[in-house]
Amino acid sequence: MQPSTIQALVFDVFGTVVDWRSGVARDAAAFLQRHGAKQTDGFAFADAWRRRYSPAMEEVRSGRRPFTRLDQLHRENLEAILPDFGLAATTLPEDELKWLNRAWHRLEPWPDAVAGLTRLKARYAIATLSNGNTSLMLNLARYAGLPWDAILGAEAAQAYKPAPQAYLRTLELLDLRPEQVCLVAAHNYDLTAARGHGLKTAFVARPLEFGPGQRTDLAPEQDWDWVAPDFRQLAELLGA
Amino acid sequence: MQPSTIQALVFDVFGTVVDWRSGVARDAAAFLQRHGAKQTDGFAFADAWRRRYSPAMEEVRSGRRPFTRLDQLHRENLEAILPDFGLAATTLPEDELKWLNRAWHRLEPWPDAVAGLTRLKARYAIATLSNGNTSLMLNLARYAGLPWDAILGAEAAQAYKPAPQAYLRTLELLDLRPEQVCLVAAHNYDLTAARGHGLKTAFVARPLEFGPGQRTDLAPEQDWDWVAPDFRQLAELLGA
Repeated sequence: MQPSTIQALVFDVFGTVVDWRSGVARDAAAFLQRHGAKQTDGFAFADAWRRRYSPAMEEVRSGRRPFTRLDQLHRENLEAILPDFGLAATTLPEDELKWLNRAWHRLEPWPDAVAGLTRLKARYAIATLSNGNTSLMLNLARYAGLPWDAILGAEAAQAYKPAPQAYLRTLELLDLRPEQVCLVAAHNYDLTAARGHGLKTAFVARPLEFGPGQRTDLAPEQDWDWVAPDFRQLAELLGA
Repeated sequence: MQPSTIQALVFDVFGTVVDWRSGVARDAAAFLQRHGAKQTDGFAFADAWRRRYSPAMEEVRSGRRPFTRLDQLHRENLEAILPDFGLAATTLPEDELKWLNRAWHRLEPWPDAVAGLTRLKARYAIATLSNGNTSLMLNLARYAGLPWDAILGAEAAQAYKPAPQAYLRTLELLDLRPEQVCLVAAHNYDLTAARGHGLKTAFVARPLEFGPGQRTDLAPEQDWDWVAPDFRQLAELLGA
């Protein structure tokens, strides 16, 4: 497909642009050791934390809970899993809990991400369309050197993907028609929702997002408009 | 004052960062000539257009009208002033009107702005806090090379400055306390409102914003936390 109608690329971020699992594991391991946890495997901690991510957002998506920013959901989930590692939020210093919760603001980009985004930005507007809140995305961009033109997504839309409003409000803020915007994501469910609203779609597999045993999203599950192994090659496909 | 508590700088844009009058006048003059207007003074056109800016936003601030993005207000104001120049929106091609309305997306930065912002960005998060809508600010940033970390302001807040919500919602999105954020503006009224909500304040005079006859905002009208003649010297004052 020719990219000629596209004006802006919007990106899923956790997993697609940055390696959340390694970054969270790194800080969690240091935290667990520092506080004498009985279990100090940072990857196990990252995985436990991440398992509560989607259910927490589902409370908002279902309307059972008003929109609550991801930092707050992460904090509640953090407190919920600490006992599994032999710790309790009530006996830990508040600034230590804050520091660990902000591990999600300190994630490394995949090796191709910054060079690929820089190249894509020369031709297209690039923006986040992440479930992460605005300040989280801003801090992450400054940490990882991600050259976004704008930070859009869940908090701006007051809706978590894949709720329709997350995509539709992003189009409104960009003042673009659906076919002028392409979602770049490593997750088929996200692209499915975006396509349902008329956006163009680009799949970049991130087979290590969930670690060496990953079984999901290893390949495209539909005929997405573009499929590339990394952001540099996506730039090539998109003529950037 | 020591800048040590500050985490983010938020910027007024029209007049403070970019020279709207010269940019609008340039495109308006070309437009007026192209369409055989009886009056082809681009600066007169820019001034007439700008005179309707604040009254149009006041309709929203007063609650008489729901939040409407600035591009739309600009378009209505454009159609309203065309007759003063011997033209009528109904007899002009739609793509020409769209092009002229987007003159506000194609404005030159003041000469110190890009270098100053780049330097400030190395130490502080920098974001817009403008009445311009998100897509306008995004396009302007790409046109003028403004290296924002985030585009915040009226559309994100659904409120026009100096309404309180414009400042308060921006703090929420940044997840910062008022004293951690400094507004940079060339307009005393904007700084007055920001200070009223506890933000820090920096005044940079732009004595040519309204042309050679400018009488307002030539000097600080309160003891703002910082006063600098341009963004480079502001960076110096703020230790960036």
